[in-house]
Amino acid sequence: MSMTVGVIGGGQLARMMIPAAVNLGIEISVLAEGDDSSARLGATAVGDYRDADTVRTFAKSVGVVTFDHEHVPPHVLAELLSDGAKVRPGPHALTFAQDKIAMRTRLAELGVPIPGWTTATTPAEVDAFVTEYGGKAVAKTARGGYDGKGVRMISSSADVVDWLEALADGEQLLLEERVSFTRELAQLIARRPSGQTALWPVVETVQKDGVCAEVIAPAPGSAGAVSDMAAKIAVSIAEGLDVTGVLAVELFETDDERILVNELAMRPHNSGHWTIDGSTTSQFEQHLRAVLDLPLGATDMTAKFAVMVNVLGGPTEGMTSRLPAAMGNHPHAKIHAYGKEFRAGRKVGHVTVAGDDLDAVVAEARGAAENFSN
Amino acid sequence: MSMTVGVIGGGQLARMMIPAAVNLGIEISVLAEGDDSSARLGATAVGDYRDADTVRTFAKSVGVVTFDHEHVPPHVLAELLSDGAKVRPGPHALTFAQDKIAMRTRLAELGVPIPGWTTATTPAEVDAFVTEYGGKAVAKTARGGYDGKGVRMISSSADVVDWLEALADGEQLLLEERVSFTRELAQLIARRPSGQTALWPVVETVQKDGVCAEVIAPAPGSAGAVSDMAAKIAVSIAEGLDVTGVLAVELFETDDERILVNELAMRPHNSGHWTIDGSTTSQFEQHLRAVLDLPLGATDMTAKFAVMVNVLGGPTEGMTSRLPAAMGNHPHAKIHAYGKEFRAGRKVGHVTVAGDDLDAVVAEARGAAENFSN
Repeated sequence: MSMTVGVIGGGQLARMMIPAAVNLGIEISVLAEGDDSSARLGATAVGDYRDADTVRTFAKSVGVVTFDHEHVPPHVLAELLSDGAKVRPGPHALTFAQDKIAMRTRLAELGVPIPGWTTATTPAEVDAFVTEYGGKAVAKTARGGYDGKGVRMISSSADVVDWLEALADGEQLLLEERVSFTRELAQLIARRPSGQTALWPVVETVQKDGVCAEVIAPAPGSAGAVSDMAAKIAVSIAEGLDVTGVLAVELFETDDERILVNELAMRPHNSGHWTIDGSTTSQFEQHLRAVLDLPLGATDMTAKFAVMVNVLGGPTEGMTSRLPAAMGNHPHAKIHAYGKEFRAGRKVGHVTVAGDDLDAVVAEARGAAENFSN
Repeated sequence: MSMTVGVIGGGQLARMMIPAAVNLGIEISVLAEGDDSSARLGATAVGDYRDADTVRTFAKSVGVVTFDHEHVPPHVLAELLSDGAKVRPGPHALTFAQDKIAMRTRLAELGVPIPGWTTATTPAEVDAFVTEYGGKAVAKTARGGYDGKGVRMISSSADVVDWLEALADGEQLLLEERVSFTRELAQLIARRPSGQTALWPVVETVQKDGVCAEVIAPAPGSAGAVSDMAAKIAVSIAEGLDVTGVLAVELFETDDERILVNELAMRPHNSGHWTIDGSTTSQFEQHLRAVLDLPLGATDMTAKFAVMVNVLGGPTEGMTSRLPAAMGNHPHAKIHAYGKEFRAGRKVGHVTVAGDDLDAVVAEARGAAENFSN
């Protein structure tokens, strides 16, 4: 097999695969959305990932196809398979990342702990579910949501009238129990086609307005039961859904000490950016190894703690203008800028600090990230 | 100042600057020797670094010019300066890296400890020096040597007849005391134009046939006097020669516990490759920071020890074919392949392992590198 990895999508996840590929001596090709994509350095093609011809031509130029995002349409993925392309994760797995209802259905079959859920197409169905769960619920569109988009906290069908009206034939809304959780966790796992898996320590993720703001690795107090449950769930899902590459399992830790699956992502994930600077093998290197079916690297941490803080929006003039202040005051901060234009709330970079004193690490990471906020 | 760093030369040192630039969100442009250069992913121009027009055009496209090697001719560097380009390290510093006699002269002026030395143009001068130093000496061409090339162990002028005959008008050979050393060390330092310096721990370098084979960080038993002397020497040289960017000072540790300067390199150096996987800030990131006059990063180690083993020559079919075995048996090894064609003795990659047990780290690094030898 050719050792060229082709990445569909030129966002920051593709960008962060580039250093890993350069280090390992693996060729990387990116099908980018435009000339100014975050991963432009690795771009060998620019085009629309929804266009089958564009994607098929790209796939023929590489040894294995993987993804920066989960939005490539199923019919395009199917054509790649019929061309004989190696697609990892495969379409049969990706469908669960693309369709939240299919995912919930499959996780229920696997016996993985998830919040109470149902599907609905009418106001009456919505209200019945809300009533069953104490007057509140979470409504999600089955497809297309990310970073808080396509998710609403609801207390009656009135809150999703527009969504219900917009449903096409055969489409449904997903309704979920509004879980009373103490914190959110994420378990990252990588899996090769040949079956080998590797897990990083479970982390705590802190969300603001539905977007990941901070990640603490490992999740404080997670050693033992929490860590074991998270790992068991991630292995069940990776194997049960036949995921290849990196899989992120977002979790709720509940008041009553249960761990429930919230969301899945079948690619490197924001909750794993800390691994670049805090683990022997980063999620980006591991993803490349996994999709190439190479043996997975060690996932131990290089310090007791690693904390990642996202840079959202960022300076309108770009992050580089703030480097002097951030670097001068925070020599231990590992600064990552994605080369993206400013847009309010957009993820444009992150900062990671690793060390043995959690309070100091948190303060350093937040302090460095602060330099890049407007 | 534009934050685009222009690197003259497309070898593995330029290649390893790419991940650092991608992470920091700094643009990098490489003037490569050919389309198949090691740093091809960052290449924005292909051309001859000895051609003034080529280099001047390249320099105008970037914010600061730095180097993969020290071979750009002085007259080309002078033209860059007269164009107003920012060249780091500057030609006034680079001249000492390009001309070993100028370097020895300057180090002697600075009072830095160096082996006994002289210059010679005649057999009589060579023999006089050899006799003075007990019948043996080291002869070096003033320019153009690297990786053991341009260096000979001699016991009389007969060993350098060809070199003496080939001397052009004004050229001289450098003769040096053949130091009785217990081991070789290297001290890496980075220095910004504004004067800030940062040092990594002094390392032990193990040479085979004049080429670096292994590096152990920190040099065992170096804490205290050895480390202090090495640091003092490196700071004296960096400041005395007004070096900007990374400076590598290769050192002899003698039987009688002296530290003597052997060679200098004004760029990231093989003795610092371990920093990618073993230090908070790699020499490549630090070099970018330094030439951009950005605050330097922390240089502490991420484990007690880091050991780097070079891959020389490598498999004729390329390193990627050996990745499954190397990765499978050595999950902690950080494998670096430079994307270079096989040639006997050529540096085509390296392996680094970091950890707290030196014996285990050495065994793992050697074991992983072994997979790539023919």
